[in-house]
Amino acid sequence: MPKTTKKAEVKPFVRFDYSRMTAERGNMMMPKADLIDLARRLEPVRAAVIKQWRSGQLGFMAIPERTADLKAVEAMAKTVGREFKTLVVIGIGGSDLGARMLVKALKPAGKGMEIRFIGANTDPDEMAALLRDLDWRKTAINVISKSGDTIEPMSAFVLLRDRLVKAVGVNRHARHVIATTDTEKGTLRKIADREGYRTLPVPADIGGRFSVLTPVGLFPAACAGIPVRRLVVGCRAVRDEFAAAKTMDNGPLMFAGLQHDGYVRRSQHITVLMPYGERLREFGSWFRQLWAESLGKRLDRHGKVVNHGFTPVAALGATDQHSQVQLYNEGPFDKTLTFIEVESPDADFRLPNPYPDIEGTAYMAGHRLGEILHAERAATSLALTENGRPNGTVFVPRVSPEAVGALVNFFQIATAVAGELLDVNAYDQPGVEAGKKHMYKLLGRKGFEKF
Amino acid sequence: MPKTTKKAEVKPFVRFDYSRMTAERGNMMMPKADLIDLARRLEPVRAAVIKQWRSGQLGFMAIPERTADLKAVEAMAKTVGREFKTLVVIGIGGSDLGARMLVKALKPAGKGMEIRFIGANTDPDEMAALLRDLDWRKTAINVISKSGDTIEPMSAFVLLRDRLVKAVGVNRHARHVIATTDTEKGTLRKIADREGYRTLPVPADIGGRFSVLTPVGLFPAACAGIPVRRLVVGCRAVRDEFAAAKTMDNGPLMFAGLQHDGYVRRSQHITVLMPYGERLREFGSWFRQLWAESLGKRLDRHGKVVNHGFTPVAALGATDQHSQVQLYNEGPFDKTLTFIEVESPDADFRLPNPYPDIEGTAYMAGHRLGEILHAERAATSLALTENGRPNGTVFVPRVSPEAVGALVNFFQIATAVAGELLDVNAYDQPGVEAGKKHMYKLLGRKGFEKF
Repeated sequence: MPKTTKKAEVKPFVRFDYSRMTAERGNMMMPKADLIDLARRLEPVRAAVIKQWRSGQLGFMAIPERTADLKAVEAMAKTVGREFKTLVVIGIGGSDLGARMLVKALKPAGKGMEIRFIGANTDPDEMAALLRDLDWRKTAINVISKSGDTIEPMSAFVLLRDRLVKAVGVNRHARHVIATTDTEKGTLRKIADREGYRTLPVPADIGGRFSVLTPVGLFPAACAGIPVRRLVVGCRAVRDEFAAAKTMDNGPLMFAGLQHDGYVRRSQHITVLMPYGERLREFGSWFRQLWAESLGKRLDRHGKVVNHGFTPVAALGATDQHSQVQLYNEGPFDKTLTFIEVESPDADFRLPNPYPDIEGTAYMAGHRLGEILHAERAATSLALTENGRPNGTVFVPRVSPEAVGALVNFFQIATAVAGELLDVNAYDQPGVEAGKKHMYKLLGRKGFEKF
Repeated sequence: MPKTTKKAEVKPFVRFDYSRMTAERGNMMMPKADLIDLARRLEPVRAAVIKQWRSGQLGFMAIPERTADLKAVEAMAKTVGREFKTLVVIGIGGSDLGARMLVKALKPAGKGMEIRFIGANTDPDEMAALLRDLDWRKTAINVISKSGDTIEPMSAFVLLRDRLVKAVGVNRHARHVIATTDTEKGTLRKIADREGYRTLPVPADIGGRFSVLTPVGLFPAACAGIPVRRLVVGCRAVRDEFAAAKTMDNGPLMFAGLQHDGYVRRSQHITVLMPYGERLREFGSWFRQLWAESLGKRLDRHGKVVNHGFTPVAALGATDQHSQVQLYNEGPFDKTLTFIEVESPDADFRLPNPYPDIEGTAYMAGHRLGEILHAERAATSLALTENGRPNGTVFVPRVSPEAVGALVNFFQIATAVAGELLDVNAYDQPGVEAGKKHMYKLLGRKGFEKF
């Protein structure tokens, strides 16, 4: 039987070890002597972020205070969970990746609703597969869009609504739909008001990629049976630590500072995030949007053309040791790596010794699976260090809601800091507008004929 | 109801459009005038690859002739499918990613065995989740390892074998295990012979990352109900086309040539592969290993330190338009993009018009989901081109077994060509050995104490 560990969760929920970012092997790591200078340069940056937060410009930093949203999510999830068995989540980008990540990491076995994600793609084959499985009487829809103008979720929504209305009738269908959208304006708000859908708010001052700990991500998570309140506990702890900790002990601040230093001084433009553990498989997909869309910018905040940006790569340990680590050890020195290590798995297994005379397996006997996974991460980090490859590790005690909430805010805050360091607006996405206009033209939308 | 298209599959199964790699917007695309010179330089490279193939040095190029393996796979899958309902596949890297990709792309709904992948990680939490679900009487194990010395699959195997033996008895358990391994030597061969497991061959001359169309990937695919013979039809078509086509019409050759040109002349070290469509979601994970592990090398073939390598990025359309495309349009000019476009989905859906007076959704009415997905790809490619970002598109008529087999060999051959161009050994992986030794030492394996 798996050995189940039920430790009380203690702070810190997340800890960043950057000693191998500065190990001075070769010349593609940061010299240790520069750390003090880096810390000195980071202090005004931290102050700037805190000032933006205190003056109400950084909505995501105030998430722990949005207690009304949290209560609304918990109450809605409780009701919807009593009424339905399956929740179809329709969203894309920040309205999709965060909730997927939470469900993959934290859904308790055998508890909560079944969650199906759609609308991440307008893929007809995927839609057909979903429709084969659904029992509409037991299915609710959570459509998520701040504006209701995004084509992928809205096309999926009108299709699914059509099937839902055919299955349960137009009068009854409204009870099956929960719209997460702007509280006042936009296409989805208009539809929800007309149809009488239940709604949850998308905070006006929080962008999509920073919204996983708002109702956008929390509602699907709560429906999945995840104690969402504990996510916010981890989120708050990291924020308060960011404000209080000494610079050199300040995880998100040092993470951003070290990435930026590699970027400007050693052209390390690729950021590999490599969690070890299946439950964090989707964490990298969530991080990719945050890091790429926030920092990949043509102009800096003064209008100068800079074409900045890190290219994030989502890797997974131990899997990618057999796929990407050859490149990371021997290829160009154009990247940094960050591991996420889970210190204690929830279950563990001791390996038996069925073939004591066969050395190729016998040496594993008595070791635990979790121990092997630790050894894999430690050995990979060591080999990379010997090859002069800068690598850091974020430790979490286990994959608890507190730790995941802490990891989320660690990287959210690091992104805000990195935006300050690169001097770009980390909260807009002007580079996707042209593509949208071309698409509207191709589809014959009014007003886009001449684009 | 979804409109189902059952077209006969016609060649070419795959077509590469590179016109937007050379569109001469800005100075980070290849000048069109250089194409003829590139083609001239590629001819001897093609000849070299063909010579290696004809002289028996490139095992993967001869896969279409391995008809005995194909028959063995089909026969074994038929028997195992009659005896069991679920197949647990234990493998990592090339023994895992290829089969996962095939099953995701091609598993027919409601047919074949249920396939569960494990051993991609030695993750105890994942193992616990798997064990909760399995009914051993109806479950077979396919353990895949050429040598049987790889710790991740072998640790998962001894654990699962232990549970299997407890559930069905040591005498009966052998019938549940199919080992895909070397025909003569290695730890897993020794175990299989001793236990009397049924086996399938890993061809001695084909490396893991080139093995998806050998029994390594074909057996799980066949168990999933995929007509694997048709995969090989596509594989063969691309190989024969590579040998016969004019240089400028030669997809894999031009793909590798254009990537290499961007790499050496414009420092474009990042290769983004972005299929549009949910069924190709795992294709990028398979491609990542092939491209990274083959070409990411410290030394060239003459022993000179070069630290070469492309960093592959697996993206997915339309999803990543809302995550990565901001960076691709506005960030550093350090990458090329390759889309995969599926010309006809198997099913499609016409959008209804529930709110004719709400322009934010009404403009979609009458369009089909598949049409929107096409428009998204076309619009994204256009916007990237306007921003001077080199991008190509690989077209497949639909996600058929022939097309997937063709896509696989397109990128396998392109990798061989790129290896020639970079002058590196594309078939070894020396950069992962140090990490393995460190791990053995941490686990106390004999002979690694002093490493």
